[in-house]
Amino acid sequence: MKLVTYRDAAGTARPGVVRGEGIVPLDYPDMRAVFEDYDRAIASAKAARGDGTALDAADLEAPIVPKKFFHTAGNFREHEEESQKADWSHEIAPWIVFFQNTDAIIGPDDPIVYPPHLTSELDYELELCVVIKKAGKHFDADAARDYIGGYVLFNDITARDIQRNEMRSGVFSFCKAIDTFCPVGPWIVTPDEVGDPHDLRMELRVNGEPRQQSHSSNMWVSVPQIIAHYSALGYSAGDILSTGTVSGVAAFSDDPQANYLKPGDVVECDIERVGILRNQVIGWEDAYSAPPR
Amino acid sequence: MKLVTYRDAAGTARPGVVRGEGIVPLDYPDMRAVFEDYDRAIASAKAARGDGTALDAADLEAPIVPKKFFHTAGNFREHEEESQKADWSHEIAPWIVFFQNTDAIIGPDDPIVYPPHLTSELDYELELCVVIKKAGKHFDADAARDYIGGYVLFNDITARDIQRNEMRSGVFSFCKAIDTFCPVGPWIVTPDEVGDPHDLRMELRVNGEPRQQSHSSNMWVSVPQIIAHYSALGYSAGDILSTGTVSGVAAFSDDPQANYLKPGDVVECDIERVGILRNQVIGWEDAYSAPPR
Repeated sequence: MKLVTYRDAAGTARPGVVRGEGIVPLDYPDMRAVFEDYDRAIASAKAARGDGTALDAADLEAPIVPKKFFHTAGNFREHEEESQKADWSHEIAPWIVFFQNTDAIIGPDDPIVYPPHLTSELDYELELCVVIKKAGKHFDADAARDYIGGYVLFNDITARDIQRNEMRSGVFSFCKAIDTFCPVGPWIVTPDEVGDPHDLRMELRVNGEPRQQSHSSNMWVSVPQIIAHYSALGYSAGDILSTGTVSGVAAFSDDPQANYLKPGDVVECDIERVGILRNQVIGWEDAYSAPPR
Repeated sequence: MKLVTYRDAAGTARPGVVRGEGIVPLDYPDMRAVFEDYDRAIASAKAARGDGTALDAADLEAPIVPKKFFHTAGNFREHEEESQKADWSHEIAPWIVFFQNTDAIIGPDDPIVYPPHLTSELDYELELCVVIKKAGKHFDADAARDYIGGYVLFNDITARDIQRNEMRSGVFSFCKAIDTFCPVGPWIVTPDEVGDPHDLRMELRVNGEPRQQSHSSNMWVSVPQIIAHYSALGYSAGDILSTGTVSGVAAFSDDPQANYLKPGDVVECDIERVGILRNQVIGWEDAYSAPPR
């Protein structure tokens, strides 16, 4: 099943489930509430009837705004290898984690606003995320299997020039946390429909041109191992946990300047059985009708 | 005024305001809702009457669990200077930011659980935080003054051994995000009662012994400048923004091993006109009645 957040005929954002060509509303205030009552909500979804909203015509928002968005990295060693070729300042070691800015989350088809006063090196990063099914902490990989409530796509938009500067102090967060830099969607796919999360083709395209092409089998750890590792920090139902990007980012390419994102570019994140997340980069003045201060 | 979250006679957590020796409940579901309706909530607080809960006897929780907890650093240059003496791997440059784990937040008198399987270098960091009054983004320091809804204390509990390892990859989050590592409280003090946030004595004590002693005038930037700088990431009402720690942490002291926290230690964060936040470190088995897995 695909779980969405959409605007109904009255313009109210609400959670729903895709059935056939339509959307069936779920009787919860938002997607976090669905995850807090996961088993019952999913069971009731199967019995519910549509409200006439066609998926094609629906105004989809980010499917969930989680309490916490765990941003992990280092799980695809190919990304570390390409960083070495580009003489990156730090090793992309296994078990990197930090928290994403949940106010930077945007949904499918929402614009990424280019802030020209802050960056001239805007990059993309294709990532598969897990949506955590229930609250818990301090558990092992065997138990972790039962914490997978779904999967969702994430485009980790990154200002590389800011990141390099931040890493002097051993952090990077601002570069990935700027307003609109966190596209998530278009929906959350339940585990039964995705099957093995380590058997998914992954591709990111800019204006239709493939830039990142990989496969989730290239992760050196398993999804349950990742979930278990960060359980020392505690989960709430509906938390998002990213699993890191694959090779092919602009910064580590042969011609970064040519490959960095520019206003007008359309970026598509595409993961087999999970979906396609499409967002356009727009200019600052197109968003705010005035230059940045 | 002091804003608290407390358990009423029925055991329900609710927001309130301290009046004299008692607590006046605020008619909002939680402190984030108070901040989302800040001006009206503060005005109504002055007219409200107590429910008989004495502050002395009250069971206080963390005054707020924000949507986002901006963790900033580098604002006290003395902390960078002490890190150089200790040959720290990275510069503590100005304008460090990352996001704190909001599920790790604990309140006044709640225990910090020592995880012996994860760290043997548990450190403290005294910090003054701003609680953001209203949603906003992309504004300057002049406008920032109007975003200060209150001040609160924060003890930035940090596993230094984990931090050193994380910084190989240019991040540090896990080390500060472990369950219970984020004591916040005991209350939020409104700006009228604090006055100039750059004129506050700051002290952290372990078992009554002063470890960190400084003054908020030692910040090299102003609180409104800090708030404005991070407005590119967007604020929600009630967000917490820390302003960084001062010199005197265990890791940079003459004898780190002697100064790291151990089960049984009591840590007090004390900032003039803001309050005292007291938490005890307890052993894992005292928390869970079993050794860690």
